[in-house]
Amino acid sequence: MKVEDIRIGVVGLGLMGSSIVAALLVAGHQVVALAPVSYDAQEAPSKIGRQLELCQQAGMIKNNPSFYLDRLTISEDYDLLGACSIVLECVIEKIEIKAEVYHKITSVVSSKTIIGSNTSAIPISVLQEKVAHPERFLGVHWAEPAFMTRFLEITCGKLTSADCADHIFTLAHHWGKEPTLLKKDIRGFITNRLMYAVYREIFHLLENNVAKQEDFDKAFRYDAGSWMTLMGLFRRMDYMGLGDYAAIIDQLFPELSNSEKVPAKMQEMVQTAAKGIHNSKGLYPYVHGEADQWDEAFASFNNEIHQLAAEYPAGKVNDYLISGKNYQ
Amino acid sequence: MKVEDIRIGVVGLGLMGSSIVAALLVAGHQVVALAPVSYDAQEAPSKIGRQLELCQQAGMIKNNPSFYLDRLTISEDYDLLGACSIVLECVIEKIEIKAEVYHKITSVVSSKTIIGSNTSAIPISVLQEKVAHPERFLGVHWAEPAFMTRFLEITCGKLTSADCADHIFTLAHHWGKEPTLLKKDIRGFITNRLMYAVYREIFHLLENNVAKQEDFDKAFRYDAGSWMTLMGLFRRMDYMGLGDYAAIIDQLFPELSNSEKVPAKMQEMVQTAAKGIHNSKGLYPYVHGEADQWDEAFASFNNEIHQLAAEYPAGKVNDYLISGKNYQ
Repeated sequence: MKVEDIRIGVVGLGLMGSSIVAALLVAGHQVVALAPVSYDAQEAPSKIGRQLELCQQAGMIKNNPSFYLDRLTISEDYDLLGACSIVLECVIEKIEIKAEVYHKITSVVSSKTIIGSNTSAIPISVLQEKVAHPERFLGVHWAEPAFMTRFLEITCGKLTSADCADHIFTLAHHWGKEPTLLKKDIRGFITNRLMYAVYREIFHLLENNVAKQEDFDKAFRYDAGSWMTLMGLFRRMDYMGLGDYAAIIDQLFPELSNSEKVPAKMQEMVQTAAKGIHNSKGLYPYVHGEADQWDEAFASFNNEIHQLAAEYPAGKVNDYLISGKNYQ
Repeated sequence: MKVEDIRIGVVGLGLMGSSIVAALLVAGHQVVALAPVSYDAQEAPSKIGRQLELCQQAGMIKNNPSFYLDRLTISEDYDLLGACSIVLECVIEKIEIKAEVYHKITSVVSSKTIIGSNTSAIPISVLQEKVAHPERFLGVHWAEPAFMTRFLEITCGKLTSADCADHIFTLAHHWGKEPTLLKKDIRGFITNRLMYAVYREIFHLLENNVAKQEDFDKAFRYDAGSWMTLMGLFRRMDYMGLGDYAAIIDQLFPELSNSEKVPAKMQEMVQTAAKGIHNSKGLYPYVHGEADQWDEAFASFNNEIHQLAAEYPAGKVNDYLISGKNYQ
């Protein structure tokens, strides 16, 4: 089956949902976008149009945005999902709301239609219990902006079939992703667990006045940042020669923070309703207009790192061999 | 005092030492390079010459490599360090050898000469005990390749004077660095602690068969990698809006690995004398010639990310304000 003939449904058109719609359109799919919230349905066309313009500016698409928009249906009517072989859910992180959405989806689609959730907080095995024919349900977790990041985390719940996961894993390469496949449904998946391991240590060091907040950021930006996108963690160890790691692990692991508590600084953020750049209250001070500057900087940086990553794919030995699994 | 008039000594001309020499030459300094190992003294001129050529190719220097090499003295004679106001030590990570080197340095320099160590393993406060006038001693920790990375970790020992640390911190901006200043001498400094916190969790997930090794690498490369160099950790939280962190911390911190043990996989690496790309035995398999490919890829990627980072300096609010502290 050709990618252009695969029709994908997306339910939920907030920030993430509309960004996923743009990613799927750019990949060549026909997309049915369901907006459970009417406001989102009105906003979605112009929002997705702008995202496609960004893709055009970045040289990611061959045709004009209108070509892709013609392949998109936006509606509040779940019946239109009936012809979709894949439906991706991106509604808010509330189990009862998601369960209701799954009920509406499964009422109109075939029992073979794959249903994916973009959740980053709720275990897939928990959500799976709410879905008829749960073997076709899995986590499909995108990074923002979905149309310009290579990350995609595919997570199997306890009941997810291997075929279902393989299908999305293979297709994801056609979406321009470098997908990761989690065979076990662990809380936080991979990236959140790894990042929160870093957060636990960095708040510990901050609370002990080891350095200033901005110095921690600099250290991560210019040390880890200088090899991260090229190598990842295990490859980096091989590159560095492996020699010292065991000895340093032996010294350092026992000294790292094992805290289970929310750090005081983060509690303070919650209590003061700080939303970072979004309300100019956060870990850093913000001046008027700075939020927009960060948004622009991120969009631009993301475009550049996206292109840079394309020049340095994973080592040949470890590349996922897509030949033979091509959809074309 | 002009940068060109500041004479810096570098003791130890291995991989790191010669790379630091190149970085200081490019910054405009006069450099006296001491080679305690004769073999290194013979190899150093061509090695440093090649590094300067890389800088030229990357558009980092205005003059030819020969211009900078004319400002370099390579010798085995410690007396030549006498006119240096800063001496950086980059010999092997053995306390007794470093102590001997410090004794030779302090015998010929003024009591005000700043002495820095590139150690990444030995606490600065421990090394400081081996140095006469210990208030002028501190950690000056570079990332490889020193002439093309923005990272520099400056660490105070218990006895280091604030003036001494400030002096190097300010000067580091003239070296093209985004330095971090550690006011406390903690084991592993910042970056190692943060990275080993990630390693602890990633080995835990690997041992529990959550995903394949290469999938962990992909997740870090394409998720963290897509914002790391732009933002660092705390800025990222502000950018994301802070809202969910406290709740996720509350759920995840208690589930993260608190292991103090060297992971079985890493023990196996030690037992089989695996040195990664350097002897084609490591966490990944390697084919003949692949080590060279990784070296080339890293040199090239590093050049690109170095340039990319220059376009996205830290937010204005948090920029280190160097005006008024200019050496020119």
